[in-house]
Amino acid sequence: MPMKSEVIANPRAERVRRVSELADRKGRKRSGRFMVEGPQSVRELLSWHPDIVEDLYVEVVSAEPDAAFITPTVAQMAGKAMQTGAYVHKVTHAVMQHMSSDAQGVLAVADMRAFLDSAVIDGDSDERTMVAAFWQVRDPGNAGTVIRSADAAGCAGVVLVDDCVDIFNPKVIRSTAGSLFHLPVVSMGTDEYFDWCAERGLAVYAADVYGTDARPPEPLTDVLAVPQSLAQAKTVLFGNEARGLTQDVLERVDRIVSIPIYGKAESLNLGTSAAVMLLSLAMSSHVERM
Amino acid sequence: MPMKSEVIANPRAERVRRVSELADRKGRKRSGRFMVEGPQSVRELLSWHPDIVEDLYVEVVSAEPDAAFITPTVAQMAGKAMQTGAYVHKVTHAVMQHMSSDAQGVLAVADMRAFLDSAVIDGDSDERTMVAAFWQVRDPGNAGTVIRSADAAGCAGVVLVDDCVDIFNPKVIRSTAGSLFHLPVVSMGTDEYFDWCAERGLAVYAADVYGTDARPPEPLTDVLAVPQSLAQAKTVLFGNEARGLTQDVLERVDRIVSIPIYGKAESLNLGTSAAVMLLSLAMSSHVERM
Repeated sequence: MPMKSEVIANPRAERVRRVSELADRKGRKRSGRFMVEGPQSVRELLSWHPDIVEDLYVEVVSAEPDAAFITPTVAQMAGKAMQTGAYVHKVTHAVMQHMSSDAQGVLAVADMRAFLDSAVIDGDSDERTMVAAFWQVRDPGNAGTVIRSADAAGCAGVVLVDDCVDIFNPKVIRSTAGSLFHLPVVSMGTDEYFDWCAERGLAVYAADVYGTDARPPEPLTDVLAVPQSLAQAKTVLFGNEARGLTQDVLERVDRIVSIPIYGKAESLNLGTSAAVMLLSLAMSSHVERM
Repeated sequence: MPMKSEVIANPRAERVRRVSELADRKGRKRSGRFMVEGPQSVRELLSWHPDIVEDLYVEVVSAEPDAAFITPTVAQMAGKAMQTGAYVHKVTHAVMQHMSSDAQGVLAVADMRAFLDSAVIDGDSDERTMVAAFWQVRDPGNAGTVIRSADAAGCAGVVLVDDCVDIFNPKVIRSTAGSLFHLPVVSMGTDEYFDWCAERGLAVYAADVYGTDARPPEPLTDVLAVPQSLAQAKTVLFGNEARGLTQDVLERVDRIVSIPIYGKAESLNLGTSAAVMLLSLAMSSHVERM
């Protein structure tokens, strides 16, 4: 798709307003599109989901038709987008600022429905398969961080269970540092999640410090010490940032695992817990046993 | 120390201005004091360093002399502080807002020099001893998060190496969630750090993805698979958020260890890396071998 030669220079243009409205859930719902800001996220979007990108906005140094891109990175993004079906639009600094203050010179607009349709967690599983699940995660930064950790741990996908933050919130997307485009992220209700795990034959591990009255958590050290018991397709479920998991939910899981704390810290936050639990389990399943 | 009966109700009072200035490095340097905001941090400060607390400001519901504390938590803090040598001052909501917008009703002022003098990393060490070290960490939120992870991993202390963020920055203190008061946090230059490690007999592990030209990193999985090799007093050194560690620094360490990445994520951020590396090593040294 060729790049338009004229530069969008009017911050009050209808098109500029429509893009800026994608920062809000209402604007996204109305248009069926979402925004992806910054070189890192846009690069991963163009690499892994080139087909869903509709428009790419790239910042140039002036309103002249032959104005240069503001950085080589931005020029590279424009080149990459032109190999896909996306329209590439040159915009001035003022216009980009009106669209988003976090774009660092490049912003993509993509089709929300098409992205959701592409998010399917592979049904084939083996003893290393792991799916990360987060129940009622509400903070956008946390959601982004845990999706990034799930990606690093090689998870087959992420399930956002019950009432979680909107993954199309720009802060979530920025916090994933591109990981949102690396692995399928799907949403389910609580019952739907447990049914889905049962159908797939996934053992459900809950990451929880307290456990239930009837069942205290197993320390992660004990769990890792018997790697044979971990050789099964599984999902690891993490609770809400403030309230953790409810007793109701904990009663439905197969194992409850806690991260041991050796110092005086009371607890770990959700981002830290997810990173330690998911990477530890992943390393354990990949290590050559002595 | 009894509590003053009158309520500080004038946001323009000299005392209020002086407290608010502790948010800045200049104000802290001038007065030799620092501020600790919020119930969690203040509780840990009062529990572990009661002797360094000079003043505690607690919010009450009105300017009347017998006004109630805004929450039971705040009342509890006031009671706890009165058992120490601190002066307890009742303040109105407007005054507290002028001092800090992150206090949640309670703010302590403490002696900076006395706190620094109390921060000494225990010289005795055994094969489980681990000291976390961060080279040129600059972001206040990151610094807080890694100190919290070092605490959870049971580290003997934290060394901030070379030019790091000021630990008395209120955002650092808030991000540690009280951990700053649980373990000694000291600052050193790069040469000083390596000399100190040599004197203490600490093996220096660097957490680094790239290694040097001559020495690629050992994957953490390989390192954990030979626990005998980990049975030594050690320090784990992490690099700057953006640039990692320099070749110069890497050439001086004993081992270079990288966290394996199984998915498509490019890297982990500093907070996540520190949590995974420190907790994995701590768990490995505490687990009963099969």
